[in-house]
Amino acid sequence: MANRAFGVKSEAVNESPWKPSSERARQREIKREAVILTAARAFRQRGYHNTSIDDIAALLNVTKPTIYHYVDNKEEILFECFRTGLDQIKAAFEETLPSKSTAMTRLTAVIRRYAQAITSEFGWCMVRAEDQDLSPVMSKRINTLKSEIDQGIRKLINQGIADGSIRLCDPKITAFALAGAMNWIAHWHREGAELSPDEIADRFIETFVNGLKPR
Amino acid sequence: MANRAFGVKSEAVNESPWKPSSERARQREIKREAVILTAARAFRQRGYHNTSIDDIAALLNVTKPTIYHYVDNKEEILFECFRTGLDQIKAAFEETLPSKSTAMTRLTAVIRRYAQAITSEFGWCMVRAEDQDLSPVMSKRINTLKSEIDQGIRKLINQGIADGSIRLCDPKITAFALAGAMNWIAHWHREGAELSPDEIADRFIETFVNGLKPR
Repeated sequence: MANRAFGVKSEAVNESPWKPSSERARQREIKREAVILTAARAFRQRGYHNTSIDDIAALLNVTKPTIYHYVDNKEEILFECFRTGLDQIKAAFEETLPSKSTAMTRLTAVIRRYAQAITSEFGWCMVRAEDQDLSPVMSKRINTLKSEIDQGIRKLINQGIADGSIRLCDPKITAFALAGAMNWIAHWHREGAELSPDEIADRFIETFVNGLKPR
Repeated sequence: MANRAFGVKSEAVNESPWKPSSERARQREIKREAVILTAARAFRQRGYHNTSIDDIAALLNVTKPTIYHYVDNKEEILFECFRTGLDQIKAAFEETLPSKSTAMTRLTAVIRRYAQAITSEFGWCMVRAEDQDLSPVMSKRINTLKSEIDQGIRKLINQGIADGSIRLCDPKITAFALAGAMNWIAHWHREGAELSPDEIADRFIETFVNGLKPR
């Protein structure tokens, strides 16, 4: 017995029933992401107010306390859905370097990522979150993130006017027109639609870059 | 006494205390419009769910039963706000005749009216109504009206491709981009903003007609 116990202990040095902390952190992140993705789908299908933490737990075959292990409350989940979608757009601002391409090229890359994000599972949360009677604190956090994207688009338009790749225009109103057209995708796009996110992006880019008047 | 009473009766033939029915219908319409306009302002300021029929009555210095004399329920008021805004856009489709101008000219007239409608008192209701957990019947009625506008824009784009005033494009997705940019105005426009509705329309038309690429 002592030997077996010792044997077990000896093995445990190499094979602990606890995974290394790096692996535990990774597992925790995977589970947290599953909570957020499942919630994003549920919010879109049933609406935010009609989805409870219990519903999200049931969809993942766990109990409510398990969900609270990963997120503080439902509003926090909505915020994370919002942020996950927005992070995809933010990444596009850093993908192409100003030194290597015109501002117009970088702007079209942002439009493409924007279309992908809005047609993703997180699109509904990104566009509809603000209509959900959120707490003032949460509204402010969401508006701060939104403002970063808005400012990023305005900056690209300004740079494009400077480098000659974008026609002289009102950067603020033009950025609103772009973001509005993109955000509105969440109102009409349905999963399994005839056009892929990339095809939608192609048509949007064509309209915004070349305009409706024949060239 | 009899004489006085007779005298009153005699006068009443010419000056009835009741107004002619045409005038009564006009007064009723004016009052009904006041109910809808007051409700539109209240919905935008406080939100639809936070505004009661009592609130609307109080704003008009009348009682709740008076309001019910003009509308059946709160959802009906929201629908009327929505329809009033949309009617302004619909009118633009009929203002200029196909025989007298190109489809592009007619489309820009629609964009101008659209911007005016969305920045009006009714803009919030037009764009946010569908997020308010309306009854299935009401959602369907609103979607039918929206679809008319959408189809009208697609038709103009198709006519523009045919008459050569609009570049070859995907009419459906282009109509969505236009409507999305316009509808989104309700999310960022504030009363007393630095640009007038017409100035916003000018910039939108410039972006959509000429595109961002220098010509």
